[in-house]
Amino acid sequence: MSIKLVNEVREKQPLIHNLTNQVVMNFSANGLLAFGGSPIMAMAEEEAWDIAQLSDGVLINIGTLTEPHLRAMILAGKAANEKGIPVVIDPVGVGATSFRAKAFEQIVSEVQPTAIKGNTGELAHIIGVSVATKGVDSIGEGDNETIAMQVAEKYNTLAIVTGEVDTISYGQEVVKNETGHDLLAKVTGSGCLLGSILTACLSTSGTRFDQAHAATRFYGLAAEKAARLTSVNGPGTFAARFIDALAMDLTQLEER
Amino acid sequence: MSIKLVNEVREKQPLIHNLTNQVVMNFSANGLLAFGGSPIMAMAEEEAWDIAQLSDGVLINIGTLTEPHLRAMILAGKAANEKGIPVVIDPVGVGATSFRAKAFEQIVSEVQPTAIKGNTGELAHIIGVSVATKGVDSIGEGDNETIAMQVAEKYNTLAIVTGEVDTISYGQEVVKNETGHDLLAKVTGSGCLLGSILTACLSTSGTRFDQAHAATRFYGLAAEKAARLTSVNGPGTFAARFIDALAMDLTQLEER
Amino acid sequence: MSIKLVNEVREKQPLIHNLTNQVVMNFSANGLLAFGGSPIMAMAEEEAWDIAQLSDGVLINIGTLTEPHLRAMILAGKAANEKGIPVVIDPVGVGATSFRAKAFEQIVSEVQPTAIKGNTGELAHIIGVSVATKGVDSIGEGDNETIAMQVAEKYNTLAIVTGEVDTISYGQEVVKNETGHDLLAKVTGSGCLLGSILTACLSTSGTRFDQAHAATRFYGLAAEKAARLTSVNGPGTFAARFIDALAMDLTQLEER
Repeated sequence: MSIKLVNEVREKQPLIHNLTNQVVMNFSANGLLAFGGSPIMAMAEEEAWDIAQLSDGVLINIGTLTEPHLRAMILAGKAANEKGIPVVIDPVGVGATSFRAKAFEQIVSEVQPTAIKGNTGELAHIIGVSVATKGVDSIGEGDNETIAMQVAEKYNTLAIVTGEVDTISYGQEVVKNETGHDLLAKVTGSGCLLGSILTACLSTSGTRFDQAHAATRFYGLAAEKAARLTSVNGPGTFAARFIDALAMDLTQLEER
Repeated sequence: MSIKLVNEVREKQPLIHNLTNQVVMNFSANGLLAFGGSPIMAMAEEEAWDIAQLSDGVLINIGTLTEPHLRAMILAGKAANEKGIPVVIDPVGVGATSFRAKAFEQIVSEVQPTAIKGNTGELAHIIGVSVATKGVDSIGEGDNETIAMQVAEKYNTLAIVTGEVDTISYGQEVVKNETGHDLLAKVTGSGCLLGSILTACLSTSGTRFDQAHAATRFYGLAAEKAARLTSVNGPGTFAARFIDALAMDLTQLEER
Repeated sequence: MSIKLVNEVREKQPLIHNLTNQVVMNFSANGLLAFGGSPIMAMAEEEAWDIAQLSDGVLINIGTLTEPHLRAMILAGKAANEKGIPVVIDPVGVGATSFRAKAFEQIVSEVQPTAIKGNTGELAHIIGVSVATKGVDSIGEGDNETIAMQVAEKYNTLAIVTGEVDTISYGQEVVKNETGHDLLAKVTGSGCLLGSILTACLSTSGTRFDQAHAATRFYGLAAEKAARLTSVNGPGTFAARFIDALAMDLTQLEER
């Protein structure tokens, strides 16, 4: 991982416009703030364009989507494209309902994503592959590579399939990240927060691969660090310690 | 308490559609996830029916109700009735405004609840009894029994009046739960989260009494466990440790 | 600081109607509850007037403003004015977009605030002074005095400019509060929660200066107390311990 890149986030404190779901807003804001970014969460369509124009990156997460939010997301995404700042799309539960599937199609028809991230089921869905959406872990690692590559190609974007191992594809290449911890799956919005942190990393001067790798690797190391602490006894204490860890530097994360 | 029933939740990981208030979404999602359920929080009327049809239970909590949310709640509730999965209604602050009172009436006129849960003031209100809505504890235990039985009868449902002692009525019978801790009242949404956990328990194969008793009893034991820890010094540390405790098994909760 | 005033909040448990942003709702509710207030978070315009009429104070925070929220805020503010209870306005990010600036103008044209609180950039903006809105700390202390006095005069209100030192102006006088800790800036919504606690303090029988001073001073002492604990290792553990500290009495806060 390029440490320089994380340091760059901390120096610049990029303003990230999070158009995200209502469940995770507080956790995402605190996690991004701990990591070194500067979160803003405006959802009104009246100001979505203006806020995006002030920002260094835009995250679109459709977790608790409504029609007004969708309009705000598209405005913010278009403003980001115009300004040349990164746009990350997290198609939460895209395969669950036709409302979400259509919303995703509408977003990508109007906004060019810099990255699309999601779990196996979500990213399989957007390339027309059907996988079980409960128990997505049943799909093999080999499939995640194919899915990531196809998403990257179809949407001309950086693609990240999250899971026990994260699979990153850009162009025709693939890298993997193996850091992380099971407790992350016990904290609501851990995937969503990764989207915010990824957006912050994409606003640095690194390559797309380095940016995605730094975001996923640092995130997983922070989870490992928190999970090692004797004061962590479950998902509640883990969540607080994980936020602490996101504020640490790499040396602290690797301390045992 | 039937331990089998909690274990069944943990095996099945029932998908619970939470149409709940904005204040507690994150806490409810994390608490339900810790307990063993699988939370989903969709609020758009465009997908409320579809999400409920995918789910194993639906929670309707009117804490920060708006008109669009009300429409989504009714759609989700009707979908749940059609599918035959449990619907829990938590009429938060139903006596506070005519908007909430009318919304509740509209919901129960279109949706058959499996359970209605609330504090004394709320459940008294929906059977037309007036009690002080600040300082509801002033009402005696005997009254909670009558209120629970009348709610159960009027709405043909399981009724749970929460408080220092929880009173559960179904048919003409009443059981009580005495587990719990004062610190729960210092955490926003502790009643709301109980609604989510109750919905998960109602999706198991137990009887209504066993399901309600297991939910309230386990919840109270988790609170007692967290409150006993020396690392808990107030509502902030309690909340995190309570989430930890919700993920434990009964043996761990009873350890001193 | 008048301890009597904090004790009065704890005895009365004033019901505070928080029309606040979606990011901080849970944190604000838990913090206000810990401090001794009784939070309510209704956002529907259908009931905003009614809820305010039941309350002891109203907080208007425009952090994630939408048009329907704006209508609810104005209704609640007018109800508070009519009832004679305090109204606090927190013009979050008012200088960021014309949507927010216009919304603020509309609110103050219809609602008489008891207090306006915000950071240097926000309060400078509403008196027509332009300051850098990232890195607002670059502006000197002397400027904060001038800004606070001008806001107090222009809006005929108590004015509080928050920062490393909080500057409070009422009439032509100014007082300062120097308690606080850097970690507060690492927790999303720490300024927003102060607004809720200020509203609770304004519902007591103290003078405006005493109320504002008690709110800011107690808040800062709670932050200092939490930050001193060895169990605090970053913003995540700090946030939980800070909520704990808000529930303490002054003697506990000053213990080392």
